[in-house]
Amino acid sequence: MKTKNLVAAALVGAVAFTFNIARAQDPLPSWNDGPAKKSIVEFVAKVTKPASPDFVPVPERIATFDNDGTLWCEQPLPVQAFFASDRVKTLAPQHPEWKTKEPFASVLKGDYKAALAGGDHAILELFMVTHAGMTTEEFEQIVKDWITTAKHPKTGKLFTEMTYQPMLELLAYLRANGFKNFIVSGGGIEFMRPWAEQVYGIPPEQVVGSSITTQFEMRNGKAVLLRLPKLNFNDDKEGKPIGINQHIGRRPIAAFGNSTGDKEMLEYTQAGSGARFELLVLHDDGAREYAYGPALGLPNVKLGAFTQALYDQAQKSGWTVISMKNDWKRIFAFDK
Amino acid sequence: MKTKNLVAAALVGAVAFTFNIARAQDPLPSWNDGPAKKSIVEFVAKVTKPASPDFVPVPERIATFDNDGTLWCEQPLPVQAFFASDRVKTLAPQHPEWKTKEPFASVLKGDYKAALAGGDHAILELFMVTHAGMTTEEFEQIVKDWITTAKHPKTGKLFTEMTYQPMLELLAYLRANGFKNFIVSGGGIEFMRPWAEQVYGIPPEQVVGSSITTQFEMRNGKAVLLRLPKLNFNDDKEGKPIGINQHIGRRPIAAFGNSTGDKEMLEYTQAGSGARFELLVLHDDGAREYAYGPALGLPNVKLGAFTQALYDQAQKSGWTVISMKNDWKRIFAFDK
Repeated sequence: MKTKNLVAAALVGAVAFTFNIARAQDPLPSWNDGPAKKSIVEFVAKVTKPASPDFVPVPERIATFDNDGTLWCEQPLPVQAFFASDRVKTLAPQHPEWKTKEPFASVLKGDYKAALAGGDHAILELFMVTHAGMTTEEFEQIVKDWITTAKHPKTGKLFTEMTYQPMLELLAYLRANGFKNFIVSGGGIEFMRPWAEQVYGIPPEQVVGSSITTQFEMRNGKAVLLRLPKLNFNDDKEGKPIGINQHIGRRPIAAFGNSTGDKEMLEYTQAGSGARFELLVLHDDGAREYAYGPALGLPNVKLGAFTQALYDQAQKSGWTVISMKNDWKRIFAFDK
Repeated sequence: MKTKNLVAAALVGAVAFTFNIARAQDPLPSWNDGPAKKSIVEFVAKVTKPASPDFVPVPERIATFDNDGTLWCEQPLPVQAFFASDRVKTLAPQHPEWKTKEPFASVLKGDYKAALAGGDHAILELFMVTHAGMTTEEFEQIVKDWITTAKHPKTGKLFTEMTYQPMLELLAYLRANGFKNFIVSGGGIEFMRPWAEQVYGIPPEQVVGSSITTQFEMRNGKAVLLRLPKLNFNDDKEGKPIGINQHIGRRPIAAFGNSTGDKEMLEYTQAGSGARFELLVLHDDGAREYAYGPALGLPNVKLGAFTQALYDQAQKSGWTVISMKNDWKRIFAFDK
């Protein structure tokens, strides 16, 4: 190799090295540069620098994240609805009456639209029947078995692969900066806990969600908790601040959501003193994920509605609204 | 100084140095050597040594502690009853009817025995009225103000000084060994949180307790939670495993209590797989603290009962029962 080539090779090497360093130093590589990413990085800087007037001590760095539509895909149905549907199919042989009884009959035919037509009451019944009647440990195992095999109907990927890569980076970035991340979801607390630690790095005690009633009993001389078909707590809308207070006991300083179900959580976060951060994910990428919600002039969906009123409130309140289409370089880890 | 004296001085110094090292290395200096201390140290060793067949990974090292009578003194009344009583006196001018209405009238006269005679219903009413009607943040401030001044009627010490020194050492010892300590108390969750971090090193999100219902509302444009005079959850007896499952989502591997209210928590802890540890504090030191409970042939008390049946169950189940009189060198930090 000639000297000139050696120098060139060294230069190329140095540039590649510098580029890799720069990449390694960017904690949010799947986020495009822009106001959204900038608002996150600036917030984290100002609450973590000891000399900052907005400095927040580590124990108070609480961040709360909605799950469906914020951390993972909630279309064409929330993942837990697929779980409930699969449970109906599994349990059907023990329930011959379901063949003609709604919403079970429609679920067994794969007609989810008809099943949902029964309204909240039908959905609640579907969830209670499929989520109760076993111990908490038995249910944990059922969820673990299901989540390691269940796949998204459109992409064919595991549901746990349908998590948003930019949000996984955000969770890690906050954690590296002394934040304690909590999930605060309308979804079932015991549906999320069995896999949240592995997928999000969020341990069971940092998962807040809706729950059913449990009952203590001795079974073969061993203490167990039995899951009853009765709603205990609905962790949605006004329920989110209530659940946060119940489980965490401090106001978050940062909150992340994507729908009207998250409005009160963001309001509650913002009403605390000192620096605060609120963010909403707008699903506007029909090509790479889904586009939905009235704020985009698109039809509403049963869950995960981003209404025009919510959009207006976000603008007025200074909440960051991120466009999945424009703010995210890639959405899923499996995206090129 | 002669050579012989120099050597003697050096020897004395070396012995003192060794003694100090030994003391510094003993993580439980206020515990007398004996089976109780030994059982704790052996349990911690076997679950933390990587080569141990009983090794437990750090995230699963969950320890739960009852509060009243386990971490701090609950006699002559649980501390929260003194708080409720002081609140009645503070609020009395706004409630002239309390002068003749029980249990308030008796509380205002300082006759707690008569106040308690109204039974659970009267106690519940007393707690609801004194603990509700303000926002969660206002209540937090009320508790903070009270706890920094309120004193134990017998010792004249702050209630926060009436915490058991051996248990404070145990909390620190477990924490140093990768455990996450939780309080799981029948007491009010929002009565304990404002001071538990400073006193026990246990942050608000690791406090589980009884709670009243809260309601989300906007007040002067700010999101707040209003405390309603309605019981939400009773974290006692069967409620303890239910509260543990709700808040923590894993079975503890170690649990500490002192009364029948803790029985189910210990049963639930023990029923998990792998190494487990359960401990009950027996209040048998009338000279340095209080002696009470049927297991000692002494009268029962309203709260904190250590029955003969519980004692027998502890023996049968291999739970460690510690004698405050024999196992603890000192009880309070202010003891000589």
